[in-house]
Amino acid sequence: MPRPITFLSDYGNSDEFSGVCRAVIARICPEASVIDLAHGIRRHDVRQGAAVLANAVQYAPAGIHLAIVDPGVGTDRGAVAVSVAQEERILVGPDNGLLAPAIERLGGVTGAVEVSRSPVRLQPVSATFHGRDVFAPVAAHLAAGMSLGEVGDAIDSAGLTALSTPAATVEPAGLRATIGYVDGYGNATLLAAAEAAAEAGLQPGAGITVSAANRKHPASYAVTFADVGEGELMLYVDSSASLALAVNQGSAAERLGVAAGDEILLSPA
Amino acid sequence: MPRPITFLSDYGNSDEFSGVCRAVIARICPEASVIDLAHGIRRHDVRQGAAVLANAVQYAPAGIHLAIVDPGVGTDRGAVAVSVAQEERILVGPDNGLLAPAIERLGGVTGAVEVSRSPVRLQPVSATFHGRDVFAPVAAHLAAGMSLGEVGDAIDSAGLTALSTPAATVEPAGLRATIGYVDGYGNATLLAAAEAAAEAGLQPGAGITVSAANRKHPASYAVTFADVGEGELMLYVDSSASLALAVNQGSAAERLGVAAGDEILLSPA
Amino acid sequence: MPRPITFLSDYGNSDEFSGVCRAVIARICPEASVIDLAHGIRRHDVRQGAAVLANAVQYAPAGIHLAIVDPGVGTDRGAVAVSVAQEERILVGPDNGLLAPAIERLGGVTGAVEVSRSPVRLQPVSATFHGRDVFAPVAAHLAAGMSLGEVGDAIDSAGLTALSTPAATVEPAGLRATIGYVDGYGNATLLAAAEAAAEAGLQPGAGITVSAANRKHPASYAVTFADVGEGELMLYVDSSASLALAVNQGSAAERLGVAAGDEILLSPA
Repeated sequence: MPRPITFLSDYGNSDEFSGVCRAVIARICPEASVIDLAHGIRRHDVRQGAAVLANAVQYAPAGIHLAIVDPGVGTDRGAVAVSVAQEERILVGPDNGLLAPAIERLGGVTGAVEVSRSPVRLQPVSATFHGRDVFAPVAAHLAAGMSLGEVGDAIDSAGLTALSTPAATVEPAGLRATIGYVDGYGNATLLAAAEAAAEAGLQPGAGITVSAANRKHPASYAVTFADVGEGELMLYVDSSASLALAVNQGSAAERLGVAAGDEILLSPA
Repeated sequence: MPRPITFLSDYGNSDEFSGVCRAVIARICPEASVIDLAHGIRRHDVRQGAAVLANAVQYAPAGIHLAIVDPGVGTDRGAVAVSVAQEERILVGPDNGLLAPAIERLGGVTGAVEVSRSPVRLQPVSATFHGRDVFAPVAAHLAAGMSLGEVGDAIDSAGLTALSTPAATVEPAGLRATIGYVDGYGNATLLAAAEAAAEAGLQPGAGITVSAANRKHPASYAVTFADVGEGELMLYVDSSASLALAVNQGSAAERLGVAAGDEILLSPA
Repeated sequence: MPRPITFLSDYGNSDEFSGVCRAVIARICPEASVIDLAHGIRRHDVRQGAAVLANAVQYAPAGIHLAIVDPGVGTDRGAVAVSVAQEERILVGPDNGLLAPAIERLGGVTGAVEVSRSPVRLQPVSATFHGRDVFAPVAAHLAAGMSLGEVGDAIDSAGLTALSTPAATVEPAGLRATIGYVDGYGNATLLAAAEAAAEAGLQPGAGITVSAANRKHPASYAVTFADVGEGELMLYVDSSASLALAVNQGSAAERLGVAAGDEILLSPA
């Protein structure tokens, strides 16, 4: 049996881009199962893609993990396949930091190859659709049993692009953190783990103040959506163990007027 | 061979929520085929989810029918797996009425278990993502061959939550009905069967008047979209044998200014 | 093994329409793999569906190619299954021009049958959802091994509906072309091949002027998105070898105020 392939991208769900990649995979390796993780990553948002991938991949069967959020397609940015310690999984995608948190979560690199000129690429390679021409064929051949060395040229894993992530900081006024990404419901995931809230004196069940875009908003530090009234703002630990802000039956991003990359401050009420 | 799993939710198509559930299923039961019915149910709209599930499931192969529209996630609402008379199908989801119409359509309950603390759940169970932690693992193990008794504790099926549905009424002025849900095209499905139209004196091919939001709109009782001109309002029997309102190449919900739950009156012209 | 089925439609990703078709296929032919190419074709846009299908299908494994963009559903328009020269592929869909460019790309017709009253259709056939009742069952039985003659009645392939496509023209002022369709990013694909640009004196790397909706816009004839600054308009050869207009990190359709069917003029700067 071929190994399963998970697939994440910012190709969206309207166009045929993810579908053409699935077609390419099915042509090369008809029996590989393809598990679509998400194709609605905000366009070109490498950080959101990286966070979603790192959280999702640990729930998936060990296999080939194809990920494409690629604002630099057509430039000289690298294209890689990387094997990791955990369960001999292999990640495939652009070398722009997208894969970095997942690689770390999965135990670190055990091997890496550059695949831009892979012998299994579809030629001629287009300037704008390396998902179809490079990444999908590489993933499909790896699923079918090829080794890393057969799909690309070995590179030094120390040279792989890292992803810089603004750290949350505990200050006298509270916890200062950056919004990592906003999901389709308007929930805003912070680049801060649950432990950081405790260090800043925030207690589950208590009231807090969220300072964002020069305004202060009352909120609760809750456990689940039903803990607050409809339309109320809450801080909670989301299903990937990150701090996040939500409005019950509404959009926290709209309420606060914030987007990915913005900084907020969480203070005890 | 494992049994197939159909999957319906309000997780949307942008985020990774449905994808992570597919990943969990593939990890537990790699050979189960997962058939995505729809993930664009309006968020938290249990009634729309219930109607779509009941209509769709009868076209699907007998198997495990996973459905998640779960505004009460993290509260003490029940989580269930329910077997039905027809073809030994099993439905899995929150006990909030979502499964009720499908259960009835499939011949009624033959067994029910509570799965909130299922031995196959992923621990720790998060407060907000029971699709990943409870429902998907239960569905996957059932697909792989576990019995109801192995995934949960038997409960009295008489205690399962029903779904209240406002009945359509025939009045001297015509047929009064509630809008069940609005699809992505703006077509509004009524909580009324085709027979009710005849009882109220509405005849296919004839003109009718639709009263909605304190305004009256001329319309035709048509068979298919091409029976009326572009931009014209029509009543028709939709593909699930319910009465519905549509505008050819437009949105009936916008034209009428209505949403799910609103009441309308259909009268002969 | 059954043959794989690719599936393209304008059913959108919110509703259950494509999911119900997948369910019908799985019930008839459980082992057929279904490859979703795209369901976000603009509603009723036969030309966009035809172009996307023709480009995508060549990347897919040989099999059954199901395509549904069907504004005339419920009228007397034909419903067909068509075999083509290349790899014994079979296309299934409405006879409204949707399949025509793919048929041509795949070597032309070798056999055609009318399937509106196919012996394998689901009865009663609804007036509005032939995807479920006609096209999906026909595709599934073909995947399972039925011959064309078993799913419909032979027709003369010369009578299949063609798709009229406005030709691009080289004029003294430059290249006049029609916008074929706009993708989810706002990129506008022209009904013009790359060669036409050269004939009109447009050179990759040089500046050009785009005249649209009575306004002139400066642009570059570039190779990839990174060749122009953020927010800049560019002409490029897209991944299906058509000329297209894009705005780096933005929407060309919005910038130009154009939609599918509009005519534009490309001139050397």
